[in-house]
Amino acid sequence: MSNNASPALKIAMAYHEAWKNHDHASAMKVVADDVVSETPFGLIEGGAALHKSETEFAGMLKGATMVAAFGDDKTALLMYYTDTHPAPHVLSAKYFTVENGKITAIKALFDKSVFGAR
Amino acid sequence: MSNNASPALKIAMAYHEAWKNHDHASAMKVVADDVVSETPFGLIEGGAALHKSETEFAGMLKGATMVAAFGDDKTALLMYYTDTHPAPHVLSAKYFTVENGKITAIKALFDKSVFGAR
Repeated sequence: MSNNASPALKIAMAYHEAWKNHDHASAMKVVADDVVSETPFGLIEGGAALHKSETEFAGMLKGATMVAAFGDDKTALLMYYTDTHPAPHVLSAKYFTVENGKITAIKALFDKSVFGAR
Repeated sequence: MSNNASPALKIAMAYHEAWKNHDHASAMKVVADDVVSETPFGLIEGGAALHKSETEFAGMLKGATMVAAFGDDKTALLMYYTDTHPAPHVLSAKYFTVENGKITAIKALFDKSVFGAR
């Protein structure tokens, strides 16, 4: 299900695995300071803001199960189920842009209505 | 952004292009009769049900802009923005399972709260 030769996928998976393991400090090692993350709750600009948001989310994160992982030289696309305390089995996708070994942009996608948000 | 050698991606793109062009009858040519589609609004079981659902959706579909498209032998993963009449620029992803040249499963993902649903 993956392109093992993709350098961007390797970086994206390092981010994902650290995120999944509630270790967003390690995830940040592969994130550029000026990262821009597009999420269903709005734009998150900068590494510090992303780290704060994901650290808060870790409190409800129980785990994740990969559906598909693809990548090429500069981009990677993951789909997975996120298990959270309020909602189990939330289908999710993330698209990563990678430059010089760091994630510079993320498009994060899930149905935020499962969290009661609209 | 794509793996042109992927047979599943070729099928997924044929579906996507026909869907985008409001021609879901053509899209159905690459869909198995027993397709199962997982969507934010629930499970859609069978080709006839999928065709009905997507034909109804076509009434609000204005277009789509691809973000990323990947595939391997049996699966493909697309991310794109869907432009609809009620909501422009809706980030969307679809994961396709392809067997014997036909789509047998779809996981469709978008934030349904942008359509006022929850």
